[in-house]
Amino acid sequence: MPHTTSKVVVTRNLIDEAQQLLEADNSLEIVQWKSDQPCDRSWLLENVKGASGILLMLSDKCDDELLQAAGEQLKVVASFSVGTDHVDREALKKRNIRLGYTPTCLTDAVADLSVMLILMAQRRGGEAMGKVAMGEWSSMPWHPLLMVGPQIRGATVGFLGFGRIAQATLKRLIPFGISRALYLTSRAGQPAKDDHYGLLKEPSVPTEPAKSWEELASESDVVIVGCSLSPSTKHLVNADFFAKMKKLAVLVNIARGPVVDTNALVEALEKEEIFGAGLDVIENEPNIPADHPILKQPRCVLLPHIGSATIDTRVDMATESARNLLAGLRGEAMVNEVEL
Amino acid sequence: MPHTTSKVVVTRNLIDEAQQLLEADNSLEIVQWKSDQPCDRSWLLENVKGASGILLMLSDKCDDELLQAAGEQLKVVASFSVGTDHVDREALKKRNIRLGYTPTCLTDAVADLSVMLILMAQRRGGEAMGKVAMGEWSSMPWHPLLMVGPQIRGATVGFLGFGRIAQATLKRLIPFGISRALYLTSRAGQPAKDDHYGLLKEPSVPTEPAKSWEELASESDVVIVGCSLSPSTKHLVNADFFAKMKKLAVLVNIARGPVVDTNALVEALEKEEIFGAGLDVIENEPNIPADHPILKQPRCVLLPHIGSATIDTRVDMATESARNLLAGLRGEAMVNEVEL
Repeated sequence: MPHTTSKVVVTRNLIDEAQQLLEADNSLEIVQWKSDQPCDRSWLLENVKGASGILLMLSDKCDDELLQAAGEQLKVVASFSVGTDHVDREALKKRNIRLGYTPTCLTDAVADLSVMLILMAQRRGGEAMGKVAMGEWSSMPWHPLLMVGPQIRGATVGFLGFGRIAQATLKRLIPFGISRALYLTSRAGQPAKDDHYGLLKEPSVPTEPAKSWEELASESDVVIVGCSLSPSTKHLVNADFFAKMKKLAVLVNIARGPVVDTNALVEALEKEEIFGAGLDVIENEPNIPADHPILKQPRCVLLPHIGSATIDTRVDMATESARNLLAGLRGEAMVNEVEL
Repeated sequence: MPHTTSKVVVTRNLIDEAQQLLEADNSLEIVQWKSDQPCDRSWLLENVKGASGILLMLSDKCDDELLQAAGEQLKVVASFSVGTDHVDREALKKRNIRLGYTPTCLTDAVADLSVMLILMAQRRGGEAMGKVAMGEWSSMPWHPLLMVGPQIRGATVGFLGFGRIAQATLKRLIPFGISRALYLTSRAGQPAKDDHYGLLKEPSVPTEPAKSWEELASESDVVIVGCSLSPSTKHLVNADFFAKMKKLAVLVNIARGPVVDTNALVEALEKEEIFGAGLDVIENEPNIPADHPILKQPRCVLLPHIGSATIDTRVDMATESARNLLAGLRGEAMVNEVEL
């Protein structure tokens, strides 16, 4: 039997574990953009010609142009990402090309960060670190209300979106002594479809669907944005939402920046309509200059979208995308495949 | 029956709830240092004369001089604090004066902060916030290992000291998916005396006493300093300790600064012997000038001793110290009394 070789194009340096998975397959000819910087588009268009598979990143647009440049033999696109906004699904579908992605392996890492941001917002972490960094600690004499913030014990926690990451966050918050969870999905007032950790079947704290965003905003001590971005969730958290929130409540966004109206958030913090905020994402990221108004708010913590940035998770994402690529070439089941 | 009045001296503005508790007792003459700044010593020595009770803060030294200035009628000292280092216990004992304190109500607040510091150290929170604040986000192109840190899932968590706060921290860490807990007390290798949350009786993860500090240092992915300060714990975490730690491990100190040798910590971070650190306390606090070497370490988060700084906790501490004062005057049981 003649040995056939499949060409695959990889648009970035991979983590060792994933690289080894690909290199262990002798039937592959691996053409790789060997850099930590995003792949050059013209390099990709030139090198993709004749490829049976592409392993690409969020930064690589997968559109008609790319697929046409590849040619008819292309069987599989494996994306090293949870989102697939960079991929034209229709274009893949009409060519019968399979699409792999890595949606589940970052749940723990993002839920961890979400708890961290809640606590940083409540406990004035950014403000406190800033004072120490400026050498101001010695001029802050102790008094009973020095640097106090709200405590999570007894809190009602409201989730905008109640998918896997939100539920993993709730699971972590139980032993902190929260008293209640509310959630709002696209089906307001309806029970959540999926119960990923048995938190709905056997709730440790009352866990209920909110009837409206107004109810969630006005009753929560902590609001967590965990929904996807769509026309109906864009600026869901706006001036009206902040006006309904409690003065001691905090807002956390670990989902997508545009769900929160940044100008309204700055104003809510300035007017002390809410106590604080913790953001891993923001509108127009990563273009946040040092003089951006949000950075002048001492009660707002802003991180550069590091939700999934753990060694474990990135190794998992890399190996999972490599496995998806191999499965696509071999006609086997992927770890996670998008239904086109 | 003649109405007798007891004089009590209060060395600071109290939180409303506590103030009301005292004012509700008509038999009290309340003499108060009405300020958020520490009480002036000469004011205190002058005004304490004839007092039956004193409600004081960590910043007020309670020694022979003060007790003598008060006079023989003094029955009770109620301290608004967990520690009682500022109180000369022998001096109280020989005069039969009772001592109240507030040791338990801050457990939750400190355990919350301890989880926050673990995550900040692992996820490079300070470093990430700093990059955003400098406007560097747009020049950080995404790549698979950008800003990654270790993940808490699967971690072995080592506790130096395993009292109430340490156990409350462990309880919170279980749903993060940690795999094992080790603890070291003054009785190395021996099971902990107290099981505050049933974590030892029915452990969710293997929870064992370490045989030595070497074992704890070398096996832990997270080391939490939760022990009290004593000659035997001073600089317990020193250069030898860091040399045994894992390169991806983090150190958290929510107890007392001098348990950790700061110079050794700076060196360990510089030499990348450990991954990061999260400190709520440090040697020589609050005298940490802006050019202190620890503040030059991007992987170290330093907070200004805000462990118990939540509204709930400070209200609890204030009302509890007021209750202790009243109980001392009335000859009743205190919420928490020091055995002298």
